[in-house]
Amino acid sequence: MSHTQDIARVTTSELEAFMRRVLMRCGADEPSTEAVSRALLTASRMGVDSHGLRLLPHYVQAVRGGRVNPSPRMTFSRRMPATGYLDANDGFGHLAGYTAIAHAIAMADDTGMGAVAVGNSSHFGAAGCYPLEAARRGLIGMAVCNSDPFVRLHQGQGAFHGTNPFAFAAPVEGGNPYLLDMATSSIPWNRVRQYAAIGRELPPDVAANAAGDISTEPGEVSSLLPLGGAQFGFKGAGLAGVVEVLSSTLAGMLNGFRLLPMVGPDMSTPRGVGHFFLVMRPDAFNDLETYRARMHEYLTDLRSQPAVKGDEVLAPGDREWRCQAHRDAEGIPLDSANLAAYERLAKELELAPLSVSWQPNGGRMQ
Amino acid sequence: MSHTQDIARVTTSELEAFMRRVLMRCGADEPSTEAVSRALLTASRMGVDSHGLRLLPHYVQAVRGGRVNPSPRMTFSRRMPATGYLDANDGFGHLAGYTAIAHAIAMADDTGMGAVAVGNSSHFGAAGCYPLEAARRGLIGMAVCNSDPFVRLHQGQGAFHGTNPFAFAAPVEGGNPYLLDMATSSIPWNRVRQYAAIGRELPPDVAANAAGDISTEPGEVSSLLPLGGAQFGFKGAGLAGVVEVLSSTLAGMLNGFRLLPMVGPDMSTPRGVGHFFLVMRPDAFNDLETYRARMHEYLTDLRSQPAVKGDEVLAPGDREWRCQAHRDAEGIPLDSANLAAYERLAKELELAPLSVSWQPNGGRMQ
Repeated sequence: MSHTQDIARVTTSELEAFMRRVLMRCGADEPSTEAVSRALLTASRMGVDSHGLRLLPHYVQAVRGGRVNPSPRMTFSRRMPATGYLDANDGFGHLAGYTAIAHAIAMADDTGMGAVAVGNSSHFGAAGCYPLEAARRGLIGMAVCNSDPFVRLHQGQGAFHGTNPFAFAAPVEGGNPYLLDMATSSIPWNRVRQYAAIGRELPPDVAANAAGDISTEPGEVSSLLPLGGAQFGFKGAGLAGVVEVLSSTLAGMLNGFRLLPMVGPDMSTPRGVGHFFLVMRPDAFNDLETYRARMHEYLTDLRSQPAVKGDEVLAPGDREWRCQAHRDAEGIPLDSANLAAYERLAKELELAPLSVSWQPNGGRMQ
Repeated sequence: MSHTQDIARVTTSELEAFMRRVLMRCGADEPSTEAVSRALLTASRMGVDSHGLRLLPHYVQAVRGGRVNPSPRMTFSRRMPATGYLDANDGFGHLAGYTAIAHAIAMADDTGMGAVAVGNSSHFGAAGCYPLEAARRGLIGMAVCNSDPFVRLHQGQGAFHGTNPFAFAAPVEGGNPYLLDMATSSIPWNRVRQYAAIGRELPPDVAANAAGDISTEPGEVSSLLPLGGAQFGFKGAGLAGVVEVLSSTLAGMLNGFRLLPMVGPDMSTPRGVGHFFLVMRPDAFNDLETYRARMHEYLTDLRSQPAVKGDEVLAPGDREWRCQAHRDAEGIPLDSANLAAYERLAKELELAPLSVSWQPNGGRMQ
């Protein structure tokens, strides 16, 4: 969710059209344009603002700097019946992600499950986009990706792992998928920057300073704690390690500690990001009706649990689907930073600007 | 690690022989005897005392009560080339686990990866035992299992998920495997009981009382928080949900909230626990030499990170392998509760007692 004030909104179709204009003007081929705008829209519609429209200007920089290949020749080798490797040819991670998950889905059709390791890729936006493709087709999907260092090890002094996301989606008969998309850090790095900007203290057990001491002062934070904090961070660090093994090690890429920063001065050298995608057919383990009935029962049990006072109990994805319905009806919100960045983009690329509706009260939207 | 004083030690071979005598006297067939003692020894040697020799008396109760079938006919159906279902016929979860991972390994040999959902099973000990079998053969392995409710949902008032463990192992050329075996709760339930016994306060953000309020008073705790605590517990709860979907939903079993308690008055009704196992060949994605080199580089990078003062940085499994080397040389420690339970077992079953060496100083061992 955005933490600054949203001052305008845009329809999904207008935002998509603008993203397409921008990407094509930067030389992106049709598959890359389609993949990047689809992933950013998916995230923005669901309310994952950190991985939505906000990223477009960054991707433009990456293409114009030469880091990302706007018309890659991605090559897939199906090394065994259920597994393969995709060389993303330094193209957009989103295209690599949608391509890899499609191969994993096709292999799962044949053998019950399929997995693809991806090398020579780049940032792929929100990890949840790709397992969602599987879940929309009645399959279980998983995606992980390494990233440049922001998170310290358990008892480590400085940043080592990236926020290394883990995403998982499972189909739900007659409803939106079960969708978990989480970083293996305690909090997102963006949260630290937002708190620094508004002068707010961090929660007590989520970040550390350069000496490795826990700190609640966003201005002095130099690394995030792994999920679990100072005492139980061996779990978050271990999960980040699983993500690392699956994404960089299996794909033959550098581990996150050696990755060039996503946001850094060098926008011309390809980063060699790795991803990993896995797809399974529920009916490859048991009959489909049983899966559907058990999933329904589990989610019904979960959603009927009493909540602590003033709150509610949600299944992973519930908040996102609610946000998506709202934003599909009311438009996707932009804050002043988004608006300014999008105006600059239009000017620099000599394109028609994004057409927005102004928020009458200047207040926050969902 | 044990939190009470260890007063004796036993060699691995003596402990194994005793376990075998006990299990066979209870009617366990040879495969069940072999699987249970192997899993308990694996955990005890590695220092995972909560899932090691301590559990033998519980398993004896479960077999004698009729909950666990001591001579099951487990049936495996390979439903697709990479996937299958194992009906564990209410036998020991350890036998189900070793059987399922062996099938997953065989399928991975054929197709690059393999996965098995297991139904009608029971407690399987330490989840890490089964992926370790894969890693020892040069493969990546994963295991998850649901369990009876101890952990509340994010913003939930009472226990819903079990501690739902996630275990992952990956081979390391020339060394012990990378091994993560973690519960998706903040802390283990055993820790709460230990702290209650010694009158010690819990850490600030790991458990709640019956009203759903966070509590540090072990005596009033009625549920554990998911990994991530009060603020970020949606991550731990989401991971527990992934475990639930893979173990109970895929296998057609009841979700953890509906499971009979592991430790409860009814020791005669089979519980219908579900598990899920996955195995992948590293060389099914990329060439093996690349995998080995990247894994080596990653672990070297990780272990060379500076630690906070007075501590050290470890890869998942490092502590366990160190403990295993120590215990293989010096013996496996027992505390007074273990010793008393093992003496009772020998008496009740009219077996030769466990032969131990007494700890001369009555002090703690590793």
